[in-house]
Amino acid sequence: MAYDPFHILRCAHAELHVTNLERSRAFYDMLGFVVTEETPNQLFLRGVEERVHHSLVLTQADVPTVAHLSFRVESDDDLENLYEFYVKRGCRPRWREAGEERGQGRALLVQDPFGFPVEYFAQMEQVQSYHQLYHLHRGGAVRRIDHFNCFMPDFDNAFTFWTKEMGFVLTEYVESDDEPREMSAAWLHKKPSVHDLAMMKGDGPRVHHVGFWMEDMTSIIRVCDILGGAALHEHIERGPGRHGISNAFFLYLRDPDGHRIELYTSDYLTIDPDMEPIRWSSTDPRRQTLWGHKTPDSWWQEASAVLDLETGRPFDQQAAGGVERLKDFIK
Amino acid sequence: MAYDPFHILRCAHAELHVTNLERSRAFYDMLGFVVTEETPNQLFLRGVEERVHHSLVLTQADVPTVAHLSFRVESDDDLENLYEFYVKRGCRPRWREAGEERGQGRALLVQDPFGFPVEYFAQMEQVQSYHQLYHLHRGGAVRRIDHFNCFMPDFDNAFTFWTKEMGFVLTEYVESDDEPREMSAAWLHKKPSVHDLAMMKGDGPRVHHVGFWMEDMTSIIRVCDILGGAALHEHIERGPGRHGISNAFFLYLRDPDGHRIELYTSDYLTIDPDMEPIRWSSTDPRRQTLWGHKTPDSWWQEASAVLDLETGRPFDQQAAGGVERLKDFIK
Amino acid sequence: MAYDPFHILRCAHAELHVTNLERSRAFYDMLGFVVTEETPNQLFLRGVEERVHHSLVLTQADVPTVAHLSFRVESDDDLENLYEFYVKRGCRPRWREAGEERGQGRALLVQDPFGFPVEYFAQMEQVQSYHQLYHLHRGGAVRRIDHFNCFMPDFDNAFTFWTKEMGFVLTEYVESDDEPREMSAAWLHKKPSVHDLAMMKGDGPRVHHVGFWMEDMTSIIRVCDILGGAALHEHIERGPGRHGISNAFFLYLRDPDGHRIELYTSDYLTIDPDMEPIRWSSTDPRRQTLWGHKTPDSWWQEASAVLDLETGRPFDQQAAGGVERLKDFIK
Amino acid sequence: MAYDPFHILRCAHAELHVTNLERSRAFYDMLGFVVTEETPNQLFLRGVEERVHHSLVLTQADVPTVAHLSFRVESDDDLENLYEFYVKRGCRPRWREAGEERGQGRALLVQDPFGFPVEYFAQMEQVQSYHQLYHLHRGGAVRRIDHFNCFMPDFDNAFTFWTKEMGFVLTEYVESDDEPREMSAAWLHKKPSVHDLAMMKGDGPRVHHVGFWMEDMTSIIRVCDILGGAALHEHIERGPGRHGISNAFFLYLRDPDGHRIELYTSDYLTIDPDMEPIRWSSTDPRRQTLWGHKTPDSWWQEASAVLDLETGRPFDQQAAGGVERLKDFIK
Repeated sequence: MAYDPFHILRCAHAELHVTNLERSRAFYDMLGFVVTEETPNQLFLRGVEERVHHSLVLTQADVPTVAHLSFRVESDDDLENLYEFYVKRGCRPRWREAGEERGQGRALLVQDPFGFPVEYFAQMEQVQSYHQLYHLHRGGAVRRIDHFNCFMPDFDNAFTFWTKEMGFVLTEYVESDDEPREMSAAWLHKKPSVHDLAMMKGDGPRVHHVGFWMEDMTSIIRVCDILGGAALHEHIERGPGRHGISNAFFLYLRDPDGHRIELYTSDYLTIDPDMEPIRWSSTDPRRQTLWGHKTPDSWWQEASAVLDLETGRPFDQQAAGGVERLKDFIK
Repeated sequence: MAYDPFHILRCAHAELHVTNLERSRAFYDMLGFVVTEETPNQLFLRGVEERVHHSLVLTQADVPTVAHLSFRVESDDDLENLYEFYVKRGCRPRWREAGEERGQGRALLVQDPFGFPVEYFAQMEQVQSYHQLYHLHRGGAVRRIDHFNCFMPDFDNAFTFWTKEMGFVLTEYVESDDEPREMSAAWLHKKPSVHDLAMMKGDGPRVHHVGFWMEDMTSIIRVCDILGGAALHEHIERGPGRHGISNAFFLYLRDPDGHRIELYTSDYLTIDPDMEPIRWSSTDPRRQTLWGHKTPDSWWQEASAVLDLETGRPFDQQAAGGVERLKDFIK
Repeated sequence: MAYDPFHILRCAHAELHVTNLERSRAFYDMLGFVVTEETPNQLFLRGVEERVHHSLVLTQADVPTVAHLSFRVESDDDLENLYEFYVKRGCRPRWREAGEERGQGRALLVQDPFGFPVEYFAQMEQVQSYHQLYHLHRGGAVRRIDHFNCFMPDFDNAFTFWTKEMGFVLTEYVESDDEPREMSAAWLHKKPSVHDLAMMKGDGPRVHHVGFWMEDMTSIIRVCDILGGAALHEHIERGPGRHGISNAFFLYLRDPDGHRIELYTSDYLTIDPDMEPIRWSSTDPRRQTLWGHKTPDSWWQEASAVLDLETGRPFDQQAAGGVERLKDFIK
Repeated sequence: MAYDPFHILRCAHAELHVTNLERSRAFYDMLGFVVTEETPNQLFLRGVEERVHHSLVLTQADVPTVAHLSFRVESDDDLENLYEFYVKRGCRPRWREAGEERGQGRALLVQDPFGFPVEYFAQMEQVQSYHQLYHLHRGGAVRRIDHFNCFMPDFDNAFTFWTKEMGFVLTEYVESDDEPREMSAAWLHKKPSVHDLAMMKGDGPRVHHVGFWMEDMTSIIRVCDILGGAALHEHIERGPGRHGISNAFFLYLRDPDGHRIELYTSDYLTIDPDMEPIRWSSTDPRRQTLWGHKTPDSWWQEASAVLDLETGRPFDQQAAGGVERLKDFIK
């Protein structure tokens, strides 16, 4: 059986610090999120399929950062084990009591060894699914959260950490053709989809994007039309298109603070334990978009800073190897 | 050149008498009509693509009927010619002054020789298209009116009237296999689509349905999901499916008064003058739905009465030939 | 953690006995299956996404039955445990050596306590995915197997068996409103979708259908059009439509021997362990089709016999309670 | 009534000179054209909806050019009138006898005053529609021809020619914001769609692209996937996307000789005579793609030479005003 020490089930939600909550709300409304709850400085959102309190939290702040990325585990016992694990790794995890994050049970929050603010929890308040309340769907009717994608400067160690220590499974990766072959991006899953967490070698720690599952290609195109129709087309950064990697049909948006959201659908089932990871050459233009489309520079270069849980400021970033780093990417 | 005495451009709008305007409004809202104007007892609706004041009028009344079916002609001269024509045919056309129907220029209203209340006009107020205001689209975002379909008891004479006298062109028809062959339904066009007016042999005069054009199959299915999600599924009468006749993807709905609306997309261009009409055998199950689906009895039997312009009551109906008539249809 | 004694991963494939292999091949070709291998009397098929040797086996035989339903487990150790389990349950499992079924590792085959011929295996030969070879896709381009659905006369005991002993998890169910409430259908999953196995109370053991995952609604409609266009519309039994239960968009087909195939897409993720099963009243018309469509009698009444592994003949069937049984279903 | 001197019905077909007929055939096969007829050096293609002999002719030649653009008129009388008209305009029209172009009746071929090789005909052989033979559809199943788009250096005179003399109607146009306002592109129709002929100010005479109508967005995306899957992604030049102008969903491809093909769907009905042309500012990024996407330089700069009917060589080109010309386009 696969090594699964902490019974991480899936990527579960992200908290984004935004500088103008009303402006952000208008943007996420267009994508079709359902508002579960709002407070003067927070908005708790979920997709139409989801029956849990939130998969996206927007928090009013002075500086836009990703405040945390959260994974769901099976039980509170797993949280205890994670606490011990992170302490041994030299991190300073701290407990969040049930309700400290609205709708959520007891949780563990930690700046991980690579600088990412990561949260784990086992319990979340159940709410009504809007899945079949089609008359209440709006915009693109985002279905559910799907994955996180992060720039990691210490790529090789981070890859080992997430696969060997956390028990994530590799599905696809990008590698140089030159010897010694060097991996520059990896897609890792817990739930049996292509990924819960993708990592790309790059300056960081930074969060490249949060991905949400959509019903189909048409609902993704509808979001383009809605943003275009409202003259908000500048939020569209890349796509729609078909990824070579993952096979997903995708669209990348930038929210009003520059946080990147991917709308994503149609990858594949990865439950068979003997599935071979798919290798993509870093020189294959179809890995990014199967149709050969160029990826814009902003997509390669820009990403969200993450929150330093100690200081409340953006976490200091490290370079991933300067210009050399990008030569595998930008072709 | 095709015989085109009155320069009829296209089917243009229908006025439906409804018994509860608010209830009807809620229903048509779900389909995604845009409200152009409302008065205490009328609602003027259009599709998102349309730039004219209305393609559907709902009028509060005691009895649900179709108050008129309206065709657009090229110029006011055509209206004069139509006036003379109908007088010669023994009808009693009357003029409606500009604005008598809101947003509409001078119009001619007549109970035609087969009992249908038909209107012609050349001018209508221009309004903003919502076509690219995708952020304002709701429900199925109905695009535009497409056609009328009527039960006509005196089928053969009505067919001659519309093709030989009004200049409509036959695209498809249903015919018995037995000799003498008998036509029982016909699709006639002015604009170069499959039809502006379909006629089916049946008790009448009755209006079987008003058809509206939709963006694609997905938007039609969305209407099903919206009605199902809102527990208003009883408004769905037939479909979605693919017609053999016309090739259109379709859905039939019944509004709160029983008026039938077809959502329709994907027929074909009929501009070439030498296109041969397509014959369907009345025993071919694929003519109704290419997938072989049975058509429900209600679809064959029920239709809207039309308004008697003299009495303001439903127009008296004639039988089309009793049970015999239906033997070609219901297979 | 969920009780998971045998590490069953997912429903994996079905073997269907068919009476004319060429005729069946032509039918499954239209759905877009990929042929992995053929022998004089067998055809091994898979969906375009699948990387394993087969998810559907067609075997030439005199009588059309379902020869077995196969589940994949994590390891050969699980097979040993299953062997012991079934022996204790009084069944007569037998080993199939690697390659006895082409492309498959060692497998366990057993007539289960409810009469179903069930197989378990852990290893299958890897083959090329056609997922991104879009230029080679045909017909509806079936993606992958999704689930089995069976008529079970001894419903309550079978439900206990699959949930308590085999570790399947309930997602949705149908129940009478009258006291004592009686469950008449249940959807059970191992992979985190709505189901790997659905059970309906009914005469059996019989297999109601095998479900395959499709890309989207459009690809399902394409299959309707292909069958209609080829005048093979009689293979279409029910749909397309939207299930209330599971939310899936569906189409039911009958293959040339009457085996029922469901094309299925757009259910939801069921990985969260605290997800409450969804209850549907047996009087709610939307449970079957959210749009309120009636289900044809054939769908309620007809299903495939299963193979008696001892005799090689169809397994003897038991009634599920006569006419009374159907009163919960047919509304 | 609209001025309609020659009863031009619609754009009808293009003949493309290609340098490797087999290679071109493989490309157009992927788009889903139906082959009506082939000779050693010609291929006659049509869309699945079309019932006429061809809408695209590929002819083996040494140099890739557009050999002619063909419009259908109502009757042979119109051809006589066109003959006289072109002679008066100082052109040298010549008659092509029935069958000189396979499947076509008598035709008039002329190098028009702006250097374009234009053909008119009234009769074409009827062939079977593949519209409902869905089981025979391949690739994107191109439906029918929709329009031509040309670079015209003498834009203002060409615009006057096509609108005032040929009777085409303006639907949308691009204009500078500076005074004096200058029109740089125009969409003109005969059939009631957005266009049969678009003209853009630019070096020429050159044909920018030939547009074909597609069923829906999904069938256009399927073409992208097919080309990507076959590693023929370099044929994809621009899109898919939504035009601001015309509202169409589009994809631009380059065939093996560089001829540009647009796959196009979802514009709107233009039959009402009082429809106001839509003005787009040349600085509005949404006119090209509603979603704000940049148009690649190749799309602005490259186009097909046209055939000089006298010499059989590419027609000499004129500049449209040098770099100045492009400042209105490339923003």
